[in-house]
Parts: sequence; structure tokens; C-alpha cells
Amino acid sequence: MNTFEKLKRLVVGKALRTEQAIHERLSKKVALAVFSSDALSSTAYATEEILLVLATAYAFGQTNSFGYVIPISMAIATLLIIVAISYRQTIHAYPNGGGAYIVAKENLGTVPGLVAGASLLVDYVLTVSVSIAAGVAAITSAAQGTKFAWITGHRVAICLGFIVIIAVANLRGVRESGSLFALPTYIFLVSFLFMIGYGIVYYFLYDGVVPQPVGEDVMLAEGYLPQGLTLFLLLGAFSNGCAALTGIEAISNGVMAFKKPESKNAAKTLIVMAILLCTMFLGTSVLAYLFGVHPHADETVISQFARHIFTGGMGWFYFVVQASTAAILVLAANTAFADFPRLSSLLARDRFLPRQFANRGDKLVFSNGILILALFSALLIVGFGGDTSRLIPLYAVGVFLSFTLSQAGMVRHWLKVRRFDDYDDAIHQSAVEGEKSIPDLHLAIEQSRAPRFVSDDVTSRQHWKKSLVINLIGAIATAVVLTVFILTKFMHGAWLVVVMIPVLVFLFMAIHRHYVSVARQLSMETIHDTLPPIHHTVIVPISGIHRGVIKALQYAKSIAPDNVSAVYVDFDEDATAKLREYWDKLDLGVKLVILPSPYRELTRPLLRYIHKVDRLRDDDIVTVVLPEFVPKKWWQQLLHNQSSLLLKGALLFKEGIIVTNVPYHLN
Amino acid sequence: MNTFEKLKRLVVGKALRTEQAIHERLSKKVALAVFSSDALSSTAYATEEILLVLATAYAFGQTNSFGYVIPISMAIATLLIIVAISYRQTIHAYPNGGGAYIVAKENLGTVPGLVAGASLLVDYVLTVSVSIAAGVAAITSAAQGTKFAWITGHRVAICLGFIVIIAVANLRGVRESGSLFALPTYIFLVSFLFMIGYGIVYYFLYDGVVPQPVGEDVMLAEGYLPQGLTLFLLLGAFSNGCAALTGIEAISNGVMAFKKPESKNAAKTLIVMAILLCTMFLGTSVLAYLFGVHPHADETVISQFARHIFTGGMGWFYFVVQASTAAILVLAANTAFADFPRLSSLLARDRFLPRQFANRGDKLVFSNGILILALFSALLIVGFGGDTSRLIPLYAVGVFLSFTLSQAGMVRHWLKVRRFDDYDDAIHQSAVEGEKSIPDLHLAIEQSRAPRFVSDDVTSRQHWKKSLVINLIGAIATAVVLTVFILTKFMHGAWLVVVMIPVLVFLFMAIHRHYVSVARQLSMETIHDTLPPIHHTVIVPISGIHRGVIKALQYAKSIAPDNVSAVYVDFDEDATAKLREYWDKLDLGVKLVILPSPYRELTRPLLRYIHKVDRLRDDDIVTVVLPEFVPKKWWQQLLHNQSSLLLKGALLFKEGIIVTNVPYHLN
Repeated sequence: MNTFEKLKRLVVGKALRTEQAIHERLSKKVALAVFSSDALSSTAYATEEILLVLATAYAFGQTNSFGYVIPISMAIATLLIIVAISYRQTIHAYPNGGGAYIVAKENLGTVPGLVAGASLLVDYVLTVSVSIAAGVAAITSAAQGTKFAWITGHRVAICLGFIVIIAVANLRGVRESGSLFALPTYIFLVSFLFMIGYGIVYYFLYDGVVPQPVGEDVMLAEGYLPQGLTLFLLLGAFSNGCAALTGIEAISNGVMAFKKPESKNAAKTLIVMAILLCTMFLGTSVLAYLFGVHPHADETVISQFARHIFTGGMGWFYFVVQASTAAILVLAANTAFADFPRLSSLLARDRFLPRQFANRGDKLVFSNGILILALFSALLIVGFGGDTSRLIPLYAVGVFLSFTLSQAGMVRHWLKVRRFDDYDDAIHQSAVEGEKSIPDLHLAIEQSRAPRFVSDDVTSRQHWKKSLVINLIGAIATAVVLTVFILTKFMHGAWLVVVMIPVLVFLFMAIHRHYVSVARQLSMETIHDTLPPIHHTVIVPISGIHRGVIKALQYAKSIAPDNVSAVYVDFDEDATAKLREYWDKLDLGVKLVILPSPYRELTRPLLRYIHKVDRLRDDDIVTVVLPEFVPKKWWQQLLHNQSSLLLKGALLFKEGIIVTNVPYHLN
Repeated sequence: MNTFEKLKRLVVGKALRTEQAIHERLSKKVALAVFSSDALSSTAYATEEILLVLATAYAFGQTNSFGYVIPISMAIATLLIIVAISYRQTIHAYPNGGGAYIVAKENLGTVPGLVAGASLLVDYVLTVSVSIAAGVAAITSAAQGTKFAWITGHRVAICLGFIVIIAVANLRGVRESGSLFALPTYIFLVSFLFMIGYGIVYYFLYDGVVPQPVGEDVMLAEGYLPQGLTLFLLLGAFSNGCAALTGIEAISNGVMAFKKPESKNAAKTLIVMAILLCTMFLGTSVLAYLFGVHPHADETVISQFARHIFTGGMGWFYFVVQASTAAILVLAANTAFADFPRLSSLLARDRFLPRQFANRGDKLVFSNGILILALFSALLIVGFGGDTSRLIPLYAVGVFLSFTLSQAGMVRHWLKVRRFDDYDDAIHQSAVEGEKSIPDLHLAIEQSRAPRFVSDDVTSRQHWKKSLVINLIGAIATAVVLTVFILTKFMHGAWLVVVMIPVLVFLFMAIHRHYVSVARQLSMETIHDTLPPIHHTVIVPISGIHRGVIKALQYAKSIAPDNVSAVYVDFDEDATAKLREYWDKLDLGVKLVILPSPYRELTRPLLRYIHKVDRLRDDDIVTVVLPEFVPKKWWQQLLHNQSSLLLKGALLFKEGIIVTNVPYHLN
């Protein structure tokens, strides 16, 4: 216990007092850094994932196929704009944070809310796996051609190392502080935008094509065979590229972290982020197209053209691009380490996940959520060999499902707003409905749900029709894309997510049913205010007569002066006879019961006897007082029979029996 | 629990009643089979182990070196006769079984007894490993040249398979029944003796030398380099060959299993066994010499000459020899599975091993001893690659140490006999001394030690001088051989045994000290006959107010009507305020204590409070009543905080605190 405690302190550091929780308010510039790493970082792999699918047509002989990267990227950018505008509505309607779980649950009902919650949990796990895998790919790509090229063979180990570092940092209580995020994010932004500008200039001044490595084939997307260009293939490429949209919802979840006026600032930041994301994503696709980059196993697409354009005196800048790409990807993974535990704590407070996820650990973080996320993302990394392109088919399915539910929830929200003449009625009505789902209990369980349905944007409810149309377009667009995802990615791995989400929802509901049933059974409704006296019957199992047994008998007699029986299991006639003789000599005023045990068992005859005594009367409470000697050192316990432990375990499941341990401590 | 129980029944079969223990009395013929498998089976490898050492001189160029097998074998045979005669004395002096542990402990003192016990335990483990390895070698040798030759590569797996089979058979309660042992032992005896006779005739009629396999080098003993013949090398060969003597003590341990007159029958059987062992061992060495057999890695020496002499129509007899050799070696391992648990139960009853080894399991066998033996012998098999010749340097060291102590104990025995005019005085004196070592306790622990010091052979005490000389010669001879062992085998592996034996003795004594100290602390010496009343203080930690808590409070109030406090740990101000309000409304007549917990810990503030209450008065007993709800299914427990469990664990080590669980069972 103590050793474990010491080890824990060494890894996670000193415990923090509850008052030490910091509620930082972020400026727009810092907030952009904090909330956009997930979204922006996906430009590091989105273009490549499109090219990998197009490569299947290239390998089939259609050499012009890579040109489709431009229209596909433009389609994705359009979708991005639609989703961003749609989420702008959510920011205004849910200034206290409108995650998909909350929006869907409040507007569409519990099950859609849980579906959104499950989708998000699954996708947070994938965010960690995909981001870390892509970050490590940026590092191993930079190592190509240097003496460090051998690290490519240790991808999985490096990924796991990063997961452990991020998990420990989060267990120690790294919060989304501006200082941590701002610098790498802005270095990434600047260097990436510079690369795009410089690349386009370079293309028109110098030679335009990245030379293909000799003897290496173009890489195809996982599970695809060379095939002709079809609409289905193009949709597959589109689906893969939509990974660029993941993380765009982050700002709408964290509105309350902005400086006042929160919603306005958040909305502006969202638009800036969307524009930056569009620019960077489209820029990357254009450069890849211009320089005729083909996807390859050992080097990322970005690394290929960056290495090509930054030559001579600019060679060092290539490493700046790769390093800042790796850094922002690690930050993106870190974001999931804040989001996953926060969402699972929300689910746990609503009793859809085990209670252990609800409470902050002694570093004020949701430790259990962090550990579970680290475990599952590590399993995915190992299972998929730390390969981004093998993980991509699983990715973004959950995100788009949550997008769709969230936008649909907003549609419903605007319809509700319309129904009430006075907006405040709507607030009240919704609060009443929300409370009904949880039985009124006097359990001292912290509920602490923040009021959610309070809009600070007066205009939003005046223009409900316009808002409804925007969110409807968002909902339809994301629903269509989700359908495309499932059709094109199902066989490549998305089936796993499609199976997982209902399983999780089922699990949430089973857990909820259990908690509700427990709460009902523990309910105080029919309890009287007085505590009636008890008629005691006490049984003391003994293994002989010694000081420990005497102490237990004394205790037993003090509870039930006239109703104690000592029970001894007979293994050996001689020993039993001796014991009985000594017992009679002692004259303790306690009845001695001898139980036969032809099979030299201890627990079974005792349990049978206790059961028999229990059935004798209905108005008594049976207590089993167990004499137990406790050695000084834990290992000395191994030198004694563990029968008391076995008996305790067996009695735990016997209804109505109370167990008292009377320990006798040894030196 | 139930699943485990079912699985156990499947593996070990139905439980047996105590009365079902069978005490079989054996005729001399059956006893020979039961007790001699260990000793006789060693002829299967003893000669080969001598040749392996001599091969180092052969490889050095001294081609005549194998000739030394004959004088070395004769020296070993002489030693065998001395030891057998020496043990004949023990049979007469200890008709109830004179194991080295008992003889050394009674005559030389506790430490020599424990050294003998430790030596024997170590050697029983080695008996299993060596016998199984040699048995599997007999099987793989027979497979050479057949289509089953590939099994040689799976030696370790086959060995482990045999160990599992023997262990399970013993757990199921196979006893040393005549029917099991007689047939294979006598087939082995007859076929082996026939092989020796036939081999000698064959040598004089036909070609005398076994052709050496082409391209295969002679095998050397593990750890030896080619070297010239020295006295040291010859002593090394002698030491290896002494493995032939292991098991010779078996009859003296089991005198009480013989039909009446026990001692006479046992003594006769011992002499017959010694003669058979001499004949078979010398015969094997002579045949190996005559046919010029060299030791090889893939085929045993016996297999080589047996394959050579049994050709043509007699080919099948070769397989009879190999099969019966393998069978008797497996039986020899089985013998250790009876001896090891029996010795460890003796040690456990004398409190030198954990109590768990003392009791018979529900199949009336000492299950824990069987499992430990199987585990350690399996570890040795894996560690030494299932190779007999690598295990041999460790073997027989323990046996010869126990021989020496046992014989020295007998010398002391005869000196004691001399001291008393009347033999009965000696018996009485010894019994008194024996009892003194264990404190007089009223623990109901079965002592059940059979009287050991009762001789039925009147002549033995009349001729104490002759007996003393015989045992003295035995003691000196085995002591000298033991010294030779340690000198020649130390570097080849015997160091492990030399280290293990004192470690075990140290462990035995530490365990004994613990038990004696416990017994003293639990002693009833200063206990009064009446049980004085107790002043109770009761603390009920609560996590809220619900039916389970009410039940616990009711129980607490029934023990200490005016002295109960409910304790609540404050994690959240609002929840605490609500709880206090509801508590006041209920008006239960119980004081509510609120404990602050700035680090959101539960256990520590509670423990601090309990400690504080405990220190308040000296004349009370503090009981912590823990309300606990027990879900219907065990996995549902995972959905609840395990704080009650943690608290229980922490309280176990707090002196003077009594813990009562008041379970509330849920549906």
C-alpha cells in the first residue's frame, strides 16, 4: 500500500487540493492554439489519405488519376465550411459548452445522446492513435536518408512511448494551458503556410516534379487492389480525406473557456480556424498535385515535396516543418486526453459509466478516463502496426455520426424555441424534463450539472428560421457523408466502429439500469425515523482455544449475553475430545457446538450450520464473529490457513448474515 | 468459486471420507516392487554417467579409459553393500519407519534433523527430474532409426507431460498399491536380468563390439573438457555412478507397511533388493565394457548394446527392455511424489513448514506437497533441458548427506542404548526430550506423531556394540563419499544444492520461530475464566443516507445505544449541506461527524478520525460498522467504488479496531 503510494507520487507528483483547480480564461489567439491543434493537425495526413486511394487507379494504369485530388479536396473544403457555419449556431445556443452528447441528449432524447457519446469516445481513442501514428510518420520520414533511418522499424515502440508520455503528463495534471499550446501551434501554422507559399513560387521558378525513388512501388490504401477510376473509388478517396474535419467541433465544446463575450469570441475563433484549415488543406493538396508526389511507405507526401523544395541553404527549414508537424500531432493526441476523460465523467455523472469515471483524482484530473484512453489507443497502435493509413478507415465515422446528431439536435432546438412564446418557458420546460430521468434520491452523490440551456445571444432566438435552415443543411450534409463513409469504408475497417457504437450504447444503458435499480432499492421512502432494537444471535467459529478466541467470545457475549454459540469443526476425534474437555474446564458460559466433517472441509459445514441457525427465528439478526490473528508482517499470513478469508468470502453472499472480525494482533 | 470447485472435481475426482484411508499391508514380494523402483531404476543411467566422465580421457587420446568402468562400478557396489547393511540396523531400531529426518532429529538434535529433511526434499525433487529425464531418454533412444526419431527434439515437453500426468494421478489419490507397481517392476527385473545373461553369452558367441555411429563424436560429461586420466577424474566418475545408490533407504522408511513380523520381513527385502541392484548395475557396466559402448547424445548406453545384441528374431525384446526401463523410471518419479509430501507434512506438523502442508486434502493426499514437487521438478527439467547428464551433478548430494546424518544418528542411538541399563528408560527419556521442544499449548492442532522409539527386535539392543560398529562404518563411508561428491561435482552444479540446503534449513527455523512466537502470544496462561463486559464505541462511515446505511446504524445502536457516531467525508460543500439537512430531519439519535478532505481522499481522513476516537478512552473497544451493499452479480461490484474494501484492508492493520460488515443485499 505504502510502496504503491510512493510509486504513484513519483509518477504523478504531489496531490492537489480541491481549491487549486484553475479556471483559466483564454484570449482568442491563445484559444485558437488550444482548440485547433486537433483540427489543423489533420492536414498532415488528409491529402495523403486521398492520394492512397487514387493510387489504386494509378497502379491500374490510369496515370492521370492523382489529378482528382484537387476536386476532392475542394468538396471536402466545402463540407468543412458548412460544418463550421453549422457549429457557429451551437456556440451561440450553448454558451456553457455544447458537446454532441449534451445537445443530442437534451434535444433528441437519451438514446441519440448516448449514440453521440459512444461515437465520440470511440473517435477520441482513434484521434490519439491516428495523430500519434502520423506524428511518428513525420519523424521517421525526416529520418530517411540519414543515419537514423533504422528508427522506421521501431514505429510501434515510438508510438507507445509517446502515449505513455502524454498519459503521464495528463495524470500529473497538465491542463490545456496556453503556454503549452501556443508556441508549437503557431510555429506549425507559420512554417506550414510559408511552405505552401514558397512551394507554389518554387514550382513556377524551378523543376516541377519530385523524382520517384528507384525500385519502390507507389503505395496503395490498405485493403484496396489496383482498379479503374469509378465514382465509388472517388467517394472512397473523399471519405478518407474527410479526416481533415475531425476536431472542428472542439471550440463549440469549450465556449466557457473564452474571455467575455464568450460566444462572440468563440464564434470568431471558429471562423478563423476554419479558414486556416481550408487554406492549409487545399494548399497541401495543390502542392502534392503540382509536384506529382506519389504516396510511399517510408516517407509521407508532405515530407517528399518539402524535402524537394527546401534544398540548398533552405534545407534546415525542411526539418522545422517536420518537427512542428510532429509536435502539433502530439498536441492533437493530448487534446483527446482532455476530452475523453471529460466526456466519460459526464457519462458517469449521468450514471451511464461506472462511478469511478466521475471523480477527479488527487491531481484534479479524471485519472481513470486517462488510463482507459491510453490503454485502448495503445491497443489500436499495436493492432494496426502504428500505420496511419490502416487506422484511417476507422476514423471520422464516429465524428460524423456525432456531427449529424448534434446538428439534428440543433434543428430540434430551433423548433422548440419556436414553440414557446417566451424563451424562458423553454428553458424551464427543458430543465424539468431533464430532471425526470433520474429518480429523486437522497444519495449524497454529487450531481453538479451546469445549467446548459442558457443562451446569451438574444439574436439567435429571434432568427430561429435562418438558424434552423443552417443546421438542417449541416445535418443533411453530414448524414450524407456518414452514409458515404459507411458504404466506402465498411469493409476496410469501419465495420469495427459500426459494431462498437451500439455495443457501447447497450453497455451504457445496462450500467444505467443497474444504478437506477440500486437507487430504488436503497430509497428511503418507506423508512421510519426510529431505529428499532435488534434481537441478536451470535456464532463464533473457533479453531481451538487461545487468546484470540477468548477475545472474540468476550465480544460476542457483549452483543448477545445469552445467545452465543462457539462452533468447532471436528477433523480429528482426539483433538476434539481434548478441546471439549478444556472447554468444560474453562466454563465460559458459552455453548460449544461440534460439527462433523467427514471430507475434512471447513467452510461447508460451518455455512450449513449458520444457515440452520439463521432459519430458526425470523425476528433476529445473525452475526458471525470471526476470531482472527493478524501477524506483524503480511507475508507471515502465508504461514496460516486462509480459512477465515474463505469463510468471509462465502458469507458475503449469504443474505442477512453480518460478519464481525475480531483481530488479535501479534508482535 | 463454484466453477473452480467443478474444475477441481473434474481433475482430481470425488472427495474421500476420512474413514476411507486404506492401510495396506504388503507381502515381501509386493513390497520389493513398491519400495525398490527408485533404487533399481537408477541402473538405467548410473553406468552411462560413469562412462561420460571417462569419455573425457578417451577424447584426450587415452583410448583404454573406458576400462575403468569396471573397478569404479565395483567400488560403488561395495559402498552399496555397506549402506544396505547399515540401513538394516535402522529397520530393526525404528520399526515404525526411520526416515533420516526422524533418526537425525531424535538422536542428533533439531538442526541435523532439519539438514537431513532439507537434503531429502531437494533430492526428491531431483529424483523426479532425473528419473523422468532418463525415462524419456529410454523412449527417445528407442525412437532412433524409426520414423519417430523427431520426438528427440521435444524431450522437455514430453518430460513435462509425464510430470503433469504423475502429479494429477497423485492428486487423485493413487497410493503405492501393489497392483500398480508389481507388474512393471517385475517385467523390468526379468527383462533386465535376461538382457545381462543373454548379453554375456552373445559376447562370447558373436562379434564383440558395438559399431560406432559414423560422424558422431563421443559425448562428454557436462562441463568437462578432454583431459588425461587422473585420480580426480576417476573420483568424478565414481561420484556420478553413485546415483545408483539413491532410493536404497526407501525400505527403512516404510517398515510399518510390511506384514508381520515387520522388521524381519523388511530386512530380508532390503537384502534381496541390494543383491538385485548390485547384479544389475555391475552387469550393465560389464556389458557396456565388453561391447565397447561409447556414450552418445541421442542414444543411451543400454539402448546401444541392447539394440546390438537383440537382432533378427529377438528385435522385439529390445523394445521390451526400453519400455520397461521407461516404465520403472516413471514409477521411481512416482515414489518421490509419495515421499516428498509425506516428509513435508512431517516437517509441517513439527511446524518447520507452513501449516498448509500438514493436512490431507479431500482426496486424502497431501495436495500442496504434490503441487510444489511438480512445480520445482518441472522447473529443473526446463532449466536443464530435460538432460539427465546435466542433472546428475546435482543429484545424490542430498541423499548422501541424509545417509551420513542417518547413520551418525544410529551411532548415537546405540550409545544411548548402552547408557541405560533398562531399555525402557531410554524410550521414556527420549520421549520426554522430544516433547520439550514444543511448547505446551492448548491449540487444537493435531499432533498425531506415532511413537517412534519402540524396537521389536530384542536382539538389537543386546548387540549394541556390533550395531554401533556397522553404523559407524556406514557413517564414515558415506561421509567420505559425500566429501568426494562436493569436491568433484561442486563446479558442475552441486554448488546449487550446497547453497539450497542451508537456505532451506534457515527457512525451516524462521517458520518455526514464527509459529512458536504465535503460540506463546496466544497462550491461555494468564487468561481468566470469565468474560468481562465491554464498553463499546461504534463508528459508522457513511457515503450518504440510504436503506443500507439505516440498517448499519440500527445495528450500531443495538451494540452501543448511546455511543454511535456516523462519519461522512466532505467532498463537495453542496452535497454535504444537503446531507446534514436531511440527517437533522430524520432525527435518528445518532451524532453526525463531517470530516474535511481537501485532497478528495476517503480512507485517510476516516482512519485519522478512527484513530483519534480510539485514543480517547482506554477501557472501550472501538467497532467500525461498515454499511455495504452487495449486488446480485459479482461483476456489478465493479460499478461501485471499492472504498469499503480499501478501508477494511487499512483497518486490518490497525490494532484494537473491530470491523463489522453490515451487508445490504440487492436483487
